[in-house]
Parts: sequence; C-alpha cells; structure tokens
Amino acid sequence: MADERPTIAVLGGTGDLGSGLAYRWVSAGYSVILGSRSEERAEAAAAAIAAEIGGSISGKGNKGAANLADIIVLTVPYANQRPSLEEVKAEVQGKILVDVTVPLAPPKVARVNLPEEGSAGKAAQLFLGEEVRVVSAFQNVAAAHLRDLDHVIDCDVLVSGDDPAARESVVALVEAASMRGWHAGPIDNAVVAEALTSVLIHMNRRYKIAGAGIRITGESKVESK
Amino acid sequence: MADERPTIAVLGGTGDLGSGLAYRWVSAGYSVILGSRSEERAEAAAAAIAAEIGGSISGKGNKGAANLADIIVLTVPYANQRPSLEEVKAEVQGKILVDVTVPLAPPKVARVNLPEEGSAGKAAQLFLGEEVRVVSAFQNVAAAHLRDLDHVIDCDVLVSGDDPAARESVVALVEAASMRGWHAGPIDNAVVAEALTSVLIHMNRRYKIAGAGIRITGESKVESK
Repeated sequence: MADERPTIAVLGGTGDLGSGLAYRWVSAGYSVILGSRSEERAEAAAAAIAAEIGGSISGKGNKGAANLADIIVLTVPYANQRPSLEEVKAEVQGKILVDVTVPLAPPKVARVNLPEEGSAGKAAQLFLGEEVRVVSAFQNVAAAHLRDLDHVIDCDVLVSGDDPAARESVVALVEAASMRGWHAGPIDNAVVAEALTSVLIHMNRRYKIAGAGIRITGESKVESK
Repeated sequence: MADERPTIAVLGGTGDLGSGLAYRWVSAGYSVILGSRSEERAEAAAAAIAAEIGGSISGKGNKGAANLADIIVLTVPYANQRPSLEEVKAEVQGKILVDVTVPLAPPKVARVNLPEEGSAGKAAQLFLGEEVRVVSAFQNVAAAHLRDLDHVIDCDVLVSGDDPAARESVVALVEAASMRGWHAGPIDNAVVAEALTSVLIHMNRRYKIAGAGIRITGESKVESK
C-alpha cells in the first residue's frame, strides 16, 4: 500500500518551533526532512530526533530539503524569510509552501509591525508566484511543549491561503501535530495570526501568562435555537 | 456620594451593536447618551431602551452626545467613520474615544482589508490627534445576544490603545457589559481585532457557526511548573 502522506520539509528546522513541529509529525508517521543553511546542523538535529523517537527523519541543506518534499514549511526569523525564499524559489514551484513567519520588528515585539505587502504570508505569495500555493499557519504556537506529546497545546491554529485544497492539507498537518486547525480564508487574512503574535506577547508580559493563545468559539447553527 | 462612573456616548447608537452595548451599560447603571446623525432616531432608540429597562439613557445628535460624555464609543460602518470623527473632533478632545470600526470592503467581507494607516483605530488616532486617547475594542462581538442579559457572550474583547489608563477604563466597560476584556497593547495592535472580524465571518460561513468568536488561553506562570 502506497503511503499517501506528503513528505514534509521544515526549513529553519533546527530552531525550537521547526524542530518541535517536526518532532510531532515524525511521531505521527510522516517523513520529515529538516532543512538548514548548514546541512551539518540539520543532520545533527535530525539525528537527535531519530535517536529519541525513531521514525523517518533526515537533514539537508534548504535547497535539498525543499527539492525532496511535497510540502515545505518555513520557520525562520523574519529577517531570514526573503533570503530563504530566494534560495528555494525553484524547488517549491508547484508545491505547498507553509509560511510560519512573524514579521516582528525587534526590540518592540509586542507592537504589531505590518510589512508593506500587509503580511509576511502575502509577501511570500507575491514573491513565489501563482504556481506556489502559499498557506500561512502556526504563528501563534509556543514551541515550548511541542516535544511533550502528552501536552495539550491550548491554542487553535488559523490556516490562511488562497487555495482551499492546500489549506485543507495544512489543516491535516495541524491535526497530525495534535492541534486544532481552522480555515481562516485567503492569504490576505494571514495578517491576523501574524499580528496576533504581538498581542499575545503583550499579554504574556502584562498578565504574566506563559504562552497565551487563542481558541475559536461559536455555536453550531444546527445546535442553536 | 458622587457617581464616579463615566457618562458614555454611543455614536451610531441606533444600530444593533451600538444599541446593544448601550443596553448592557444602562443595565449596569451607567448614564448613556445615544448619538445619531438624526437626533429624532436617537431619541426614539433611547426611549425604547428606557421603556424596557429604565435607567439613565437619552438620545441626541452626534455632536451633542459627544459633548456631554466622558467616553465616546463610535459604532458606525467603515464608510461613516471619517465623517463621524470630523463631526465630533472638537467635542472629543481630552477624552477617550473608543473606536469599534471594522474596515470591511464589501462585498468581500471575509477577506481582510487593511486601511492605509494599518487599521481603522490607528487612522482615528492619527486624525484626532494626541489629545484624544483612542482605544480600539468590541470589533468581534456579535450584536445578536447583547439585549439578552442572561446570555453569556462567548468572545473575549481585545482592547488596544497607546494610553494604558484609557485602556483600563475601556476594560472596565467591557466587564460592565459582562464580557472579558484584555489589554492588547498599543493602537498599532488594533489591526488584530479588526482583521479578525473577516476571519470570523469566513469561519461562520465555512463551518456554519452562528457568531464565531475567540477566547484567550494561557497558563499562569504561578500555576505552571
């Protein structure tokens, strides 16, 4: 029986969020390739996860990782977003690129910073072109507990992108990582999750919360009167 | 004993959201003045609420309402925001202006539309000047159940503004209306609640939810390990 699960590349995969998501996807049976500017560091990070939980995980340079994957997840600091996209622009054509970038402007990270294009996700879509289905997700997930599979991540994931089928593929990845994903509309809506990150940082400080997040609420029309 | 509660003007107070908020504040013992471009309609809407629950409520033209109030709440459609602010610019100087505007671009209301200034709240602050403390709030509250005081509004309110004391005053108004308010940072962060409205509209359609909303989550640092 063929494995219909997509192969995932996580660029910036040696960071806390990237490696944490990779950990959960490998645990769920996905094949994951960590990508980094340093192939050696990617290999080391992959080996560490493999040693802990086994599964299918390897490390490569960003281009090599993107080339081998069906879905490419970009988890790099804002300053590295554009250079990373330039590096893999050819390799991601025809594929799904999941942009996790938060356009923070240090040191004022609790104040929303809007890119000229409106959001980092929209900027990625404009830069990569129409043949790449850019989907924005995971901006509000705290990396701290991803490697604890028993830890319930108390934060829903907003999934934005112009292609509903691509969004659905990413919602499946959210669920594979044991979180709740929501279709949040076109890539123009990526600004919400990106900007929300600054609001959550503000709340963490103001209310001394560890890892503020959001849950979507609402009554089903079927259930309500 | 002097009543230390601020007098509230609700401009656009004949609409569903404005009159619904007024209803809750009057019920909580606040003095409220509904403002409208039509003083007659404002008086009629105020009389309807007074007939139902009594309390201190009256209706006036926008300028008259703003002149008499300590806190002015603007609940008008985006197209009317700027004309309304022009009308009351003199009357709100030195006061708190609560901007509830959502910069939707009909008919695509499920797609985020970003004003040139980044948000409607930021635009209001820039237009009114530094002597007005603009606070952004209430964008994600569905008007439907505000007049049912027993109905728990399952949506937190993000409160943004550059002046923390003004934000605190508005958080108190949120709580007076039996909702949970959160300091969400400077007025630059108003974009989050404004843009989130389009995401929630998208979810209402996609998931057939009546009134999707958000709740803030997070563990107290004291309680967590």
